[in-house]
Amino acid sequence: MDEKRIVALVMAGGGGTRFWPRSRRLRPKQFLAFEDERSLLALTVDRLSGLVPPEQTLVITGKQHVDLAARETNLPPASIVGEPCLRDTAACIGYGALLARSIREDAVMLVTPADHIISPTDRFQAIVRRAAEIAASSNVLVTIGLRPHRPATGYGYIETGERIDDARPSARKVVRFCEKPDQETARRFLLAGRYVWNSGMLVFTPNVMLDAIKKHLPELHAGLMSIKDPFDAGEVARVYEELPRISIDFGVLEKAEDKVVVEADFEWDDVGTFEALARHREPDAENNVARGEAVFVDSKGSLIDNDAEGLVVVCGLDDVLVVRTQDAVLVIPRKDAERVKEVVARLEELGRERFL
Amino acid sequence: MDEKRIVALVMAGGGGTRFWPRSRRLRPKQFLAFEDERSLLALTVDRLSGLVPPEQTLVITGKQHVDLAARETNLPPASIVGEPCLRDTAACIGYGALLARSIREDAVMLVTPADHIISPTDRFQAIVRRAAEIAASSNVLVTIGLRPHRPATGYGYIETGERIDDARPSARKVVRFCEKPDQETARRFLLAGRYVWNSGMLVFTPNVMLDAIKKHLPELHAGLMSIKDPFDAGEVARVYEELPRISIDFGVLEKAEDKVVVEADFEWDDVGTFEALARHREPDAENNVARGEAVFVDSKGSLIDNDAEGLVVVCGLDDVLVVRTQDAVLVIPRKDAERVKEVVARLEELGRERFL
Repeated sequence: MDEKRIVALVMAGGGGTRFWPRSRRLRPKQFLAFEDERSLLALTVDRLSGLVPPEQTLVITGKQHVDLAARETNLPPASIVGEPCLRDTAACIGYGALLARSIREDAVMLVTPADHIISPTDRFQAIVRRAAEIAASSNVLVTIGLRPHRPATGYGYIETGERIDDARPSARKVVRFCEKPDQETARRFLLAGRYVWNSGMLVFTPNVMLDAIKKHLPELHAGLMSIKDPFDAGEVARVYEELPRISIDFGVLEKAEDKVVVEADFEWDDVGTFEALARHREPDAENNVARGEAVFVDSKGSLIDNDAEGLVVVCGLDDVLVVRTQDAVLVIPRKDAERVKEVVARLEELGRERFL
Repeated sequence: MDEKRIVALVMAGGGGTRFWPRSRRLRPKQFLAFEDERSLLALTVDRLSGLVPPEQTLVITGKQHVDLAARETNLPPASIVGEPCLRDTAACIGYGALLARSIREDAVMLVTPADHIISPTDRFQAIVRRAAEIAASSNVLVTIGLRPHRPATGYGYIETGERIDDARPSARKVVRFCEKPDQETARRFLLAGRYVWNSGMLVFTPNVMLDAIKKHLPELHAGLMSIKDPFDAGEVARVYEELPRISIDFGVLEKAEDKVVVEADFEWDDVGTFEALARHREPDAENNVARGEAVFVDSKGSLIDNDAEGLVVVCGLDDVLVVRTQDAVLVIPRKDAERVKEVVARLEELGRERFL
């Protein structure tokens, strides 16, 4: 397969409230830096460099974030696409297929979320190449899976079946997609050996995806087909509003027949909660982890994400999470990091707009 | 007694580390604002207005804090006295007696710490007048006591004896000074009825104090007597270094014979730890207290002192204290507020000079 056929669709549309106070309406998670000076989105685009040319790298994001995405990525203006409104991933990916097809008739698409931490880049690119070859030659939907090394409950899983052929041992048929499991199920998946984490990355040709949408989500397909020029923002906006809201997993992938999963061998993390910070940093002797200037006094297992000039001190408390930005501080038990959503809901209720 | 005889000595020398990160070496507690826009020192000087003329109001503070004290108080430059070094309260008060005597030969001195919250001012001034009359007419050391309304363990107590005469029912002989009690003893003191809180405020004539120092701390007295001009900073500095370090309570008051306590009827609080904040603010329904912008989500009994622009949120934690300034955040269990000293010691150890 000609590698130049790859068109990337970076999905940067999330509004993520699980990183408050770091994430804000005007700067969702994908625009934040965690393990690097560069934002997750910038790292995602960097990761494609050398594999996908800038003019074939599309970033799709909320229309209010188009300027920010342009600044973060240095991609050509035409590569940053504002989604008129959020209609979940099936609509986004279907629309992306139209865009990819109009950029390059023989496109093979890589769809990737904008908020993953992956290394090293060369292994990532090798896996994408392998997936693209399969997608181009076999007309299947290809997903990228990761061998689990812990019983994670925060990711979806894919049950893998037989190899597609002996020449490509890392590519297997998909038996089924499994939603985020409970702890017990996650342990069972880990022991069983045939389950991989669903990275959310997909590789396919636009026509294979559009055919699958036609079969499983005819209403969405009809809407998409009414778009004559996918780069005409006004036309897209008129159609988009009416597209059904459904995820690609639930709406298409779970039902589609010919699905292949390529097992990747790179390091991968979905930066889903502040816990991801702890996974990428060395803890101190008391199992405390910090990003930014921090001091722990008689504290164990605590996590500080200090994103502003100055110091955070935790004294005499175990297992707490403290997040500090220029204008806000959040203190919460580390195990309750998921409750950050409640905090954001409460701030909305209280009308503290300036902190949202 | 001629009220114009009163000379006030405001002791603003403490370096207090119990209010970190709000208090810093360059801005100790007395220069901070808690329940008002004005600092504790400014409020202390304000409280004397109308009772003691500015040129008879002396503020004694560390020499590095003289400019700050001048800005905070608007007193004439000669009223702000820099102590060459810290030599505890006996030396400070003895030196203050020399200053007072040279300002006004017939001075009756009020000595007051700079870090109390007192209201209302008219009741405070009435008590000082009453104490000054007794000090001037009876040649005794007069202390000001407060009737306890809770079994406080953070204050010293005074056991009171018989009335000095029927005309002044609020003035009693001092039986003894008691150090900060444990909880059980504090309860006993409260029930017994004859114990009052030691406010640390004293009223006396310079000669009575200097005589008591001569009797109980002859070395200190000799040092003080070698100062010819107490307003000559160079001369004072040479002597001061050698003065013994001892508190007025331990070195003089506990041993002196003729001591009277005047029971005051004003509201009084020694702002000793962040707990003082909670005593002066209305808690919410979950018993949380905040100064500055703060939100509690599923938290009980917590205390936020937010001294900077922006928001502090505590979620899912009870009984924590969060203190925020422009450049630092401290998170500590509320019951451990005394451990703030350990935090400061740790920062010294780590060489984090810029936060001290």
